[in-house]
Amino acid sequence: MTDDRFRGVITPILTPYNDDASISKELYLYHAASCLAGGAHYLSPFGTTGEALSNSIRERMEALEALIDSGSARPDQLMPGTGLCSLEDTLTLCRHAVEMGCAAVMTLPPFFYVTAGDDGMYRYFSQLIEGVGSGALKICLYNIPQNTGIGISPALAGRLNKAFPDTVVAYKDSSGNWGNTQAVIEAAPGISVFPGSESFMLQAMKLGGGGCISASCNSNVTAIRKMYDLAAAGNWDAAEAALAPINAHRQAIQAGGLIPALKSLKAHQSGDHRWLNLRAPLDNADPDAYAPLTATLPAA
Amino acid sequence: MTDDRFRGVITPILTPYNDDASISKELYLYHAASCLAGGAHYLSPFGTTGEALSNSIRERMEALEALIDSGSARPDQLMPGTGLCSLEDTLTLCRHAVEMGCAAVMTLPPFFYVTAGDDGMYRYFSQLIEGVGSGALKICLYNIPQNTGIGISPALAGRLNKAFPDTVVAYKDSSGNWGNTQAVIEAAPGISVFPGSESFMLQAMKLGGGGCISASCNSNVTAIRKMYDLAAAGNWDAAEAALAPINAHRQAIQAGGLIPALKSLKAHQSGDHRWLNLRAPLDNADPDAYAPLTATLPAA
Repeated sequence: MTDDRFRGVITPILTPYNDDASISKELYLYHAASCLAGGAHYLSPFGTTGEALSNSIRERMEALEALIDSGSARPDQLMPGTGLCSLEDTLTLCRHAVEMGCAAVMTLPPFFYVTAGDDGMYRYFSQLIEGVGSGALKICLYNIPQNTGIGISPALAGRLNKAFPDTVVAYKDSSGNWGNTQAVIEAAPGISVFPGSESFMLQAMKLGGGGCISASCNSNVTAIRKMYDLAAAGNWDAAEAALAPINAHRQAIQAGGLIPALKSLKAHQSGDHRWLNLRAPLDNADPDAYAPLTATLPAA
Repeated sequence: MTDDRFRGVITPILTPYNDDASISKELYLYHAASCLAGGAHYLSPFGTTGEALSNSIRERMEALEALIDSGSARPDQLMPGTGLCSLEDTLTLCRHAVEMGCAAVMTLPPFFYVTAGDDGMYRYFSQLIEGVGSGALKICLYNIPQNTGIGISPALAGRLNKAFPDTVVAYKDSSGNWGNTQAVIEAAPGISVFPGSESFMLQAMKLGGGGCISASCNSNVTAIRKMYDLAAAGNWDAAEAALAPINAHRQAIQAGGLIPALKSLKAHQSGDHRWLNLRAPLDNADPDAYAPLTATLPAA
């Protein structure tokens, strides 16, 4: 583990909203700092769990600046989501992240023209990389076809890594399809692959994968980090022994629909009802939905 | 036809690009004016055919201003696409269109959180309407689930029209599903429904539908307008007699993948190779793809 690949446990942080639907900076910064203190190596502001696409370009840039300016996170701990549908809008977010000194960006494929092929996707990412034009740009390709309607194939990931080995360095696989995760690790050996769930983290790490970028790192990061450290030290048996309770919590989050379940838990833990707010088109969280999550968390 | 509902033949205009991928204002303005001269009642800049989602917020606003400032189209002839995923970004485009005096806006549902329900979608559109806060806002709901992964149900259209009868006034149905088109006409009698294809226009008009908003109006608007005028005058037999050659041209466009087929035809007709350019993630048009389209156009 002496190479300089991206590795670790990454929290795609929730975005809390005030009752007027504006971002609650207060809750946001506190939560970000807590995830890092709890053991996250990095934070990904504005992933799917952070309701990324329900926030404007302006809001996303301002929130990133607030994280850094407040000292809640260092730039080299941040991998913000930057993927929009148009090249220029995506460029705006990527350039901003590079200017802020972020470790990397997590970038969706453009997700409206869902019949596009790998050649068109390759052209899009090439233009993006050339448009940013900075050696400081590090891209984590973000595969979540159940939301985008179009994925990033293993072959495309391999082709992009080969053409831009210092820039296209990671791949987040939120497909939930282990076969795809495995295929990317095989097709793109230069890329650090992060399953979107800690349930697949050990399997991925055994093949050289980077760790995980998982919604559960909003509520269970300390346990996930401990499991990661065991695995990174080659202590696979102990790491695998840690997995069952972590999976039970993950299943409770998934059964509750991920974001609303996590927000219900945060409202319960903090006593701040604003955590129940989600942005449209998603519905607000049920204040009572937290129970199966607390029941599956490790004792404090 | 003495009410003030939206009715007519609407061209979702193609967006031409220079070889450096910037919008070719020259080709764009000329094409817009040609569609109106050919018989379009309205233009929809930045629909799916106009590669809407591959253009940035800035580019879309500048192009709309260019159409109006150049005199290529009057504001009351324009119904730009304005739907993005975040409320604030969609508000930016909607407010701009209202400030420019546009007849209406054509608005997608937010299209990343594809499991959202009707309540969340209702909340999104309500917040959008309240956020613009202008009686001049007229919304055409834009249903194209094959691209967005989430549709606008007939029940939601009816509910929005009932709550905002002076604002939610139209529905573009690009699903290609006549059953859905019919269901919207039934569920939302206050809404003017436009199939996304002229092939369904007469059926829709017989039930009170508004006309069509169709990609084919980029290449065949004069014939479609003639058919519309016959139907609007109650001359149904003559209108239906006009449909077969119009459908043959439509089928040639669809077989060629819509946008690249239309751009190949425009390159051929104008002699300007820039029409062959599409933005990534779509591939450029084949220069020879025009042939089946010219073969199905009415003799000049």
